[in-house]
Amino acid sequence: MRLVDVLAAVGVKAEATDVAFEAPDVSELAEPPQGYGASIPLFKATAGEVLLAWAMNGESLTPAHGAPLRVVVPGYIGARSVKWIERITVQREPSTNYFQETAYRLLPPEGSPAPGVGVPLGAIAVNSEILVPDDGQRLPVGSTVIAGYALAGDDRSIVRVDVSIDGGRFWRQADLAEDLGPWAWRLWSLEGDLPLGNLEIVARAWDSSAALQPERPEHVWNPKGYVNNSWARVHVTVVAGA
Amino acid sequence: MRLVDVLAAVGVKAEATDVAFEAPDVSELAEPPQGYGASIPLFKATAGEVLLAWAMNGESLTPAHGAPLRVVVPGYIGARSVKWIERITVQREPSTNYFQETAYRLLPPEGSPAPGVGVPLGAIAVNSEILVPDDGQRLPVGSTVIAGYALAGDDRSIVRVDVSIDGGRFWRQADLAEDLGPWAWRLWSLEGDLPLGNLEIVARAWDSSAALQPERPEHVWNPKGYVNNSWARVHVTVVAGA
Repeated sequence: MRLVDVLAAVGVKAEATDVAFEAPDVSELAEPPQGYGASIPLFKATAGEVLLAWAMNGESLTPAHGAPLRVVVPGYIGARSVKWIERITVQREPSTNYFQETAYRLLPPEGSPAPGVGVPLGAIAVNSEILVPDDGQRLPVGSTVIAGYALAGDDRSIVRVDVSIDGGRFWRQADLAEDLGPWAWRLWSLEGDLPLGNLEIVARAWDSSAALQPERPEHVWNPKGYVNNSWARVHVTVVAGA
Repeated sequence: MRLVDVLAAVGVKAEATDVAFEAPDVSELAEPPQGYGASIPLFKATAGEVLLAWAMNGESLTPAHGAPLRVVVPGYIGARSVKWIERITVQREPSTNYFQETAYRLLPPEGSPAPGVGVPLGAIAVNSEILVPDDGQRLPVGSTVIAGYALAGDDRSIVRVDVSIDGGRFWRQADLAEDLGPWAWRLWSLEGDLPLGNLEIVARAWDSSAALQPERPEHVWNPKGYVNNSWARVHVTVVAGA
């Protein structure tokens, strides 16, 4: 069911800003050891897409997927879709659970994990991946299909994907498969002729705000390695008569 | 007043997807000449922040600002905040007005304006600007303040701004002024020592989805010059005893 309907049934006070979830799975990696927890902003919690789920595809949820009850927060990092929840709290600040306050944050390059350091991750930024060909693959000269997926994150949609076979100098637009709505992968593909040689194939996606992925991984480098949404790249070798 | 309250009062059918606005100011630049119009997706129109405005700061709106009645669509490009509106239509597709269907679109590099070509602009992508120092300014060696604004667009907030004085090799985080909420500029500043020489000062902002501005304007080049949200850059000359 929709979280917003539960919140509406119990009533939310005007000063509320965040909705926190608590689960009983205690992690020894947390400092101090504690059950898992997270929170999302109230504006997201009251958007219709956030679910409390006990079933999937018409069957009961399995424990591995969060039974008896879990949260599903589309468009946000998976860490906010808390499994096995036993408490929901509407409150005036983000969760102070270790996994919200210290872990799952975008640290500055020189930063170390500590409460409140860095940016808490939530909504996902636009990203894409090349699924075929494989990195390192040998391909015959001539027509081939380059294909992959793109994800807009948050409540946005994918509106364009560009593909380059020369490391990003020249670009062609990929064909986009059906838009299944926000929160879903958008598949894309492009058929074209590959010339002989070592090629760097690059893909980059644009979301519905005309936001483009950043070019290089070093632009988004951070100590914990989160959110590398730089352009997707694979290297292939194209040979005669393979 | 909030557009969502007007829509709730009249009722919106389940198949509706867009809300269109029409104004009587006829443009001869449109093909064919027509009054100005635009539309926004229903999910945005029913977000609480979209306003129908007839006053500003306690005073009646002036004609230049859209009197008697205009739309205000925070987080979206200005072209969707239609002035002098005389009709609102809840419909099943985006507006077919010239300014929605042909103009104000992100064209592919090789594209020309035509109905449906390119991506309609709506939500704004993360951006920033350096306000001081000025591009081309001569500055004395020693302490100086670099300052500017950043804007997250859509319903996001600015969570971090990085500043470099060497063209983007090394970065420091700027101090962020108070967060006035989504849709508002977030001011930032950084005080530091400038060395002698010609410097390229660069600023780049991150939004609450950890989306980063793209590095270079050529990445986002498009025929109409829209949405250049690449890193902000100014060039200064630092001299002894200026």
